[in-house]
Amino acid sequence: MQVLKTIAELRTWVAAKQNEKQTIGFVPTMGALHEGHLTLAAAAKKENDVAIMSVFVNPTQFGPNEDFDAYPRDLARDVELASSVGVDAVFAPSVDDMYPHDGGIRLLAGRQATILCGASRPGHFDGVIQVVSKLFHLVQPTHAYFGQKDAQQVAIIQTMVRDFNFPVTLRIIPVVREEDGLAKSSRNIYLSEAERAEAPNIYAALQMARDIVVKTNDAAAAVQAARNHIESTTNGRIDYIEVLSYPDLAQVNEQTTDVLIAAAVYIGTTRLIDNILVSVGGK
Amino acid sequence: MQVLKTIAELRTWVAAKQNEKQTIGFVPTMGALHEGHLTLAAAAKKENDVAIMSVFVNPTQFGPNEDFDAYPRDLARDVELASSVGVDAVFAPSVDDMYPHDGGIRLLAGRQATILCGASRPGHFDGVIQVVSKLFHLVQPTHAYFGQKDAQQVAIIQTMVRDFNFPVTLRIIPVVREEDGLAKSSRNIYLSEAERAEAPNIYAALQMARDIVVKTNDAAAAVQAARNHIESTTNGRIDYIEVLSYPDLAQVNEQTTDVLIAAAVYIGTTRLIDNILVSVGGK
Repeated sequence: MQVLKTIAELRTWVAAKQNEKQTIGFVPTMGALHEGHLTLAAAAKKENDVAIMSVFVNPTQFGPNEDFDAYPRDLARDVELASSVGVDAVFAPSVDDMYPHDGGIRLLAGRQATILCGASRPGHFDGVIQVVSKLFHLVQPTHAYFGQKDAQQVAIIQTMVRDFNFPVTLRIIPVVREEDGLAKSSRNIYLSEAERAEAPNIYAALQMARDIVVKTNDAAAAVQAARNHIESTTNGRIDYIEVLSYPDLAQVNEQTTDVLIAAAVYIGTTRLIDNILVSVGGK
Repeated sequence: MQVLKTIAELRTWVAAKQNEKQTIGFVPTMGALHEGHLTLAAAAKKENDVAIMSVFVNPTQFGPNEDFDAYPRDLARDVELASSVGVDAVFAPSVDDMYPHDGGIRLLAGRQATILCGASRPGHFDGVIQVVSKLFHLVQPTHAYFGQKDAQQVAIIQTMVRDFNFPVTLRIIPVVREEDGLAKSSRNIYLSEAERAEAPNIYAALQMARDIVVKTNDAAAAVQAARNHIESTTNGRIDYIEVLSYPDLAQVNEQTTDVLIAAAVYIGTTRLIDNILVSVGGK
């Protein structure tokens, strides 16, 4: 396991792997690694000659009221965890190394970034695609790994890769769930026993919505059914429940082939997100 | 010489060259090739194992009042000229192949694009960097070739490559001049005999400005001297004369290390541009 702390060190590592014609699997992270990241890393290692993970808390995706400085950082722990699943290198650059200049050129996510989680985080996804595009150029991965849990982020990155012809293949890893269906999350530990018992109803509601969409293609009815289920089975507060085309994140219509059913719900004070992606075989 | 008419054909070509570990020199053009393009192509061929040129009239860099449809297109002639200087492949995709989707993600040039030629062409440089970023991802060149004649375009592309860490090295080819100093341009044929005799004063004015900047670092005095020279020796109308830091295109100050002296002047109805790039060894 190598820890690459500068762009210069990374470039040397990448050039060596390219020279040996090795395929490179890449997992971008902000550190604070949990089981989800390690699932991505294990897939990257399995499907490529070498696996590299970036650990970089990216300032440009934090809003003015989001605490960049307080974001947890423990590189030694992250390196040990990455190593435990076979990652070959961790790229952990400084902010100054990643953003030494600002010539004012911007990569901006469009309409896709204004809804769902983006509605309450203006500029967040602009920062995400800025750093992901830089990391793709630096690492030049064969495959890059993202979790479907963050469905909106994945949709926007897929759109960027498609519309800007990035030479990388994305691998999207399904949501990992507890036995009762609750999506795994580092936030689940904040739930009280009663909240934890309610929380699986988010996924149950998404499944109901999915069944309606698949049968009738009626997005409004699907959203209403999911909303009713969450309201009748939890004390939670719904942030959003949406049924959208994927990856465009637009209104579902008869041309739609893939549908995202996504929800964000506060259970107590803990905001949980979950989603289901389903093929509806549009025309 | 191969003519690659689709992205799929290009990808096959690029993969083969990468597999053979060949260096790739890339010259992006909109066709209508002239001596300037061929100078870039010859350099690409000389400095790399293989040279590829794109011929693509990019709709996104044309403004609503600029005639995209009327832009000259003659692929057979361009292919013959490219072949004559040793280009190995011409990539000539359709607009539909290059822009099949629009997910709304945008790459936007910033302040650099609002001045000089950009002042009268809002959105132009956004379209330029959009297509250049796509072409860089598709061709994955070792070196990409641009002419210093289009200094603002070069400055913006250099900034994009630097700030977004594109894995390509830019090669900037100096302005090619007639014996009397006039920058070569396909537009020079539109000059009357009297206008042609006046035109070298643009370069003479830039040289005067350069001498002042190098000696005194006084940008305002340099601009004034160049302006005076053009006004006293030609009947031309000055669009702009500017002395700016390079590649940031900001005010020159004592930290400035590289200075661009750029002019656009109408000689009769023909708009001519020219520039000098000079190192001033700032602190």
